[in-house]
Amino acid sequence: MAAEQDPEALEALAAARPLLTDLYQATMALGYWRAGRAREQAEFELFFRGCPFGGAFALAAGLRDCVRFLRAFRLRDADVQFLASVLPPDTDPAFFEYLRAVDCSDVTVRALPEGSLAFPGVPLLQVGGPLLVVQLLETPLLCLVSYASLIATNAARLRLIAGPKKRLLEMGLRRAQGPDGGLTASTYSYLGGFDGSSNVLAGQLRGVPVAGTLAHSFITSFLGTEVPPDPMLAPAAGQGPRVDLAARVEAWLDRVCAHLGRGVQEPHRGERAAFVAYALAFPRAFQGLLDTYSVQRFQMPWLESISIAVSNNIGEEELARLAQEGSEVNVIGIGTSVVTCPRQPSLGCVYKLVSVGGQPRMKLTEDPEKQTLPGSKAAFRLLRADGSPLLDVLQLAEEQPPQAGRELRVWPRGAQEAWTVKPARVEPLLRLWVQRGQLCEPLPSLAESRAFAQLSLSHLSPDHKRLEQPAPYPVALSDKLRALVASLLAGGSS
Amino acid sequence: MAAEQDPEALEALAAARPLLTDLYQATMALGYWRAGRAREQAEFELFFRGCPFGGAFALAAGLRDCVRFLRAFRLRDADVQFLASVLPPDTDPAFFEYLRAVDCSDVTVRALPEGSLAFPGVPLLQVGGPLLVVQLLETPLLCLVSYASLIATNAARLRLIAGPKKRLLEMGLRRAQGPDGGLTASTYSYLGGFDGSSNVLAGQLRGVPVAGTLAHSFITSFLGTEVPPDPMLAPAAGQGPRVDLAARVEAWLDRVCAHLGRGVQEPHRGERAAFVAYALAFPRAFQGLLDTYSVQRFQMPWLESISIAVSNNIGEEELARLAQEGSEVNVIGIGTSVVTCPRQPSLGCVYKLVSVGGQPRMKLTEDPEKQTLPGSKAAFRLLRADGSPLLDVLQLAEEQPPQAGRELRVWPRGAQEAWTVKPARVEPLLRLWVQRGQLCEPLPSLAESRAFAQLSLSHLSPDHKRLEQPAPYPVALSDKLRALVASLLAGGSS
Repeated sequence: MAAEQDPEALEALAAARPLLTDLYQATMALGYWRAGRAREQAEFELFFRGCPFGGAFALAAGLRDCVRFLRAFRLRDADVQFLASVLPPDTDPAFFEYLRAVDCSDVTVRALPEGSLAFPGVPLLQVGGPLLVVQLLETPLLCLVSYASLIATNAARLRLIAGPKKRLLEMGLRRAQGPDGGLTASTYSYLGGFDGSSNVLAGQLRGVPVAGTLAHSFITSFLGTEVPPDPMLAPAAGQGPRVDLAARVEAWLDRVCAHLGRGVQEPHRGERAAFVAYALAFPRAFQGLLDTYSVQRFQMPWLESISIAVSNNIGEEELARLAQEGSEVNVIGIGTSVVTCPRQPSLGCVYKLVSVGGQPRMKLTEDPEKQTLPGSKAAFRLLRADGSPLLDVLQLAEEQPPQAGRELRVWPRGAQEAWTVKPARVEPLLRLWVQRGQLCEPLPSLAESRAFAQLSLSHLSPDHKRLEQPAPYPVALSDKLRALVASLLAGGSS
Repeated sequence: MAAEQDPEALEALAAARPLLTDLYQATMALGYWRAGRAREQAEFELFFRGCPFGGAFALAAGLRDCVRFLRAFRLRDADVQFLASVLPPDTDPAFFEYLRAVDCSDVTVRALPEGSLAFPGVPLLQVGGPLLVVQLLETPLLCLVSYASLIATNAARLRLIAGPKKRLLEMGLRRAQGPDGGLTASTYSYLGGFDGSSNVLAGQLRGVPVAGTLAHSFITSFLGTEVPPDPMLAPAAGQGPRVDLAARVEAWLDRVCAHLGRGVQEPHRGERAAFVAYALAFPRAFQGLLDTYSVQRFQMPWLESISIAVSNNIGEEELARLAQEGSEVNVIGIGTSVVTCPRQPSLGCVYKLVSVGGQPRMKLTEDPEKQTLPGSKAAFRLLRADGSPLLDVLQLAEEQPPQAGRELRVWPRGAQEAWTVKPARVEPLLRLWVQRGQLCEPLPSLAESRAFAQLSLSHLSPDHKRLEQPAPYPVALSDKLRALVASLLAGGSS
C-alpha cells in the first residue's frame, strides 16, 4: 500500500478524518437539511475570549493543519454508514446521499497568518460556505487551532523568559495527551520559538529540527564488564593511527582522579563503560549524562567549552532561574510544562455563526461575556510610528479600511467611551487563504512562521508582553459594528 | 487506496508510527549496536510514582493501543532514511541495515488488564526482549499508557462523584490537546465510567456510544421567517393523518403563554423556528436548548418526565452539586475538565530497565524517590475476606507466590517496619498478553474493560477510594526483593 511507504501521505489521510467531530454537528446538519437550508451561505468566526496563562497575547497557529483538513474533507462510504447507524432509523435516506457528495469546494477561509499575535475576539479564522458544511467543520477546526495556538503561545512565553541565546528543546512526547498531542506540541512549540524537539516524527513529518542523546537506561544497562567488539577509534582529523578508546580511558582515569583528589575506584564502572560505548558510537558528538547536576568547578580551561544541557520538570520559574546571567547551562530540555500547558491546558476557542444569507447573526444571551459580534467582518491592526501595535479594530466587511495618518473613532471592548486614534500604519489582519476550496497562495513554511512569530513579538510593547499582570491589549469596534450590535440587542429583546 | 475505504485500517497504520519516539532512543540504539549488545535480553517496567489528582488509585489503560503498536512495529524505508539523515554522517551503514529488520517478534509483554486498579510502583507493563528493540519502545509506550490511564482515572473520579445513575457524556473534543488527544480521551473516559461521548470517530473506531443534539449556532441560524419545505409530521404511533407541526406550535403558543402568564411575543421567534425545525428532523428525539439554565417550576405533570441535560465548564465541584439528591438534571456533559485533566495534565509514567541478560539492574541516584526496583518481578494483590484489596506485593519472579490463608512478611514502601499479613485471597496482577510477538489471549473489549473497572473500584475500601486526602494504598516488597535492593545499593556505593 502506498501509504505504508509514504509517511506524509499517511499523515494526511489520518489527519483528514471528517468524523473527528461532535455528533451534534451531524444532527444539526440533518436539521438544516430537513429545513431546506443546507446550502444557505453562512459564515462562522473562530476566536478565543481570553488570553491564556494570565498573559495579554497569544500566537495564532494551526492554519496549515486546517487547510489540509479542509482540502481532504470528504465523507467516505464507511463514514456515512456509521452516521446512518447512530442517527434515528427513520431518517430520510436522501440525507445520507446528500452527505456523500459534501466537500469543501464551496468553502472560503480567511485567517491570521500562523505566528501572528492574536487577541481576544479577533477571528483566528473566518469560515464561509454552505451552512451544512461549515457547521460540520466546527469541531475539527476548533480541535486543530486551539491546542496549536495554546502550545505556540506557551513556547513563546518560555522563549521570552529564556532570552534569545539559550537553546530550548521540547522533550515532552512521553507526557503528551496522546500521540498526536505529542506531534502537535513538537510542531507548534517550534513555531512558538523553541529550537527543536526530541520527537523524531515531528522531524520527519514537519521538518522540526530533532535532538537527543541518551537516557539513564543506557547507563544502567552497563555493568562495566562488557567488552566492546571494537574499541578502536580513528582520530577526528582523519590522520594517524586508530586508538583503543577503552584502554585510553582507563589510562587517563588515574591521572584525572589524582588531579581531582578522588580515589580511582570512585567513578562507577558501569557509568564509565556506558560513556565509552557512547563515545565509540558518537565520536564527534559525545554527551555525558549525570543524574543530579551539582558541578564542582575545577581549574581546567577545557571545562569552559563544554556545553551543559539540563532537563527535569522545568517550568517558567525554574527556567527564569536558569536563564539568569552567568548560568553555565546553555541547552534546556522542557517536557511536561511545555507540552501539557499545566497552567491552562486548553485555550477555549469558540466557533460562532456571524451571518446567514448575508444577514448578520448574533447569539443573544444573558451572559455579556458570551455575546458574539455579528456580521461578516474585517480586522485591522493599528500601529504606532515605532511599529508597535496600538490596538486591533473590528469593523464590518463593507466599511472603508482605517487609513494611516487619519483620525479614527473606535470603541474598545470593555471601555465605556470611544477613543480617537491616529495610526501611523494600518495592517489588515485576515488574509484570504482558501477561496471556494482552492488555496489562494502558498502557506508559509513552519520555519517562516516561526520567524514571523518572533518578529511580531519583538514589536509588541513590553506592557502587553509582560508575562504576569500585563496591560490588556485593546480590541475595538468601529462605530458601525457597535451600532449593529446595539440594534440587534434591541431587536432581540423586543 | 484501501486505507481510504477502511477507517480502522487507516487508524492502525497511523497509530503504528515507530518514529513517534524521542531521538535519544535511536542514538541509544546505535550505542547498544556499536557495543555489540543489541540482542541482549532486557526487561523494562512501565509504572507511575504517584497517583494522580491527589487520589490514592489510578486505573490502568492503554494496553490495547500498545499491543496494536507493537504488532505493527516496523521501520519503513522512509523511516530508516530519516534516521540516517539525523544521525552522524559517519554512522556505520550496517546499523541502518540492522534497523530495517527490527520488529517486535521477540518482544514479550506482561501487563495489568485494562481497567485494573493501579498503584505507585506496580508495573502497568513489563516489556522484555532484545535490548535495542525494547529501548526503542519506551517513548511510544509511555505516550500510549500515561494519558489513557490518566483519563480513565479522571473519568472514574467523576463517576464516583456523580453516582451510578446520572448519564455522563464526554464532550471535550474541541478542548482536547490535538485530534488524537480527543480520540484517546473519548475512548478512555468511557473505560473509566462515562456513558458515552460526543466524538463520532470514537464511536466509529472504538465502539464508544455517541450522543449529541444541537448547539447554539443552530438556534442563531434561524430568524423565524424561514418556511420549512415540509412542515408535516406523521403521528408517532404511525396511525392517523399527518399534522402541520409549525402551525400546531403557533396554535399552542397562545394557550401556553396564557397558562404561564407570559406575553405571546416573549418567546423568541428564531428560537421557536429552530426548535420546530429540530423536531421535524428528530420527531422521536426532540431536544430543546437553553443558554442559561434557571428553570421555573410550573404545575404541569408532563414536565416531570422531561430529561434535562447540562454542560458548561463542569468540574468535580460543580458535578458534586449537580449529583446531589433531588437535582432534576439527569444527563451531564463534561468537556475540558475530563479531557485535559486540568488538575494534573500528565500522569508522569516512567519506563525503567530492571534486568539485562537475566541480571537485575537498578538506577542508582541521590534522589530516593527516583530509585528503581531491580529484577524481573511478579506482582500480587492480597485481598481481605470481603474481597477488598489489602495491599499489593512485589517480589522476584522466581519466588513462590503468596498463598491464601498463609502468613506473609512484607515491607511496605515508605514504612520502617515489616508487616505480617494473612490474605484471604491472592490475585496475580500481571498477565502474559504477548509472548515473542504473539498475542496469547484475546484482549477484552472496551466495554468489558469498562465493566471490570467499575467492579474493581467497587471492591476498593472507601479509605482509599476517597477523592480528597485518601489513605495511601500500601505497596510492599517481599523479603527477597528488599534484600536485593539493599545489596545493589551497597554494591553501587562501593
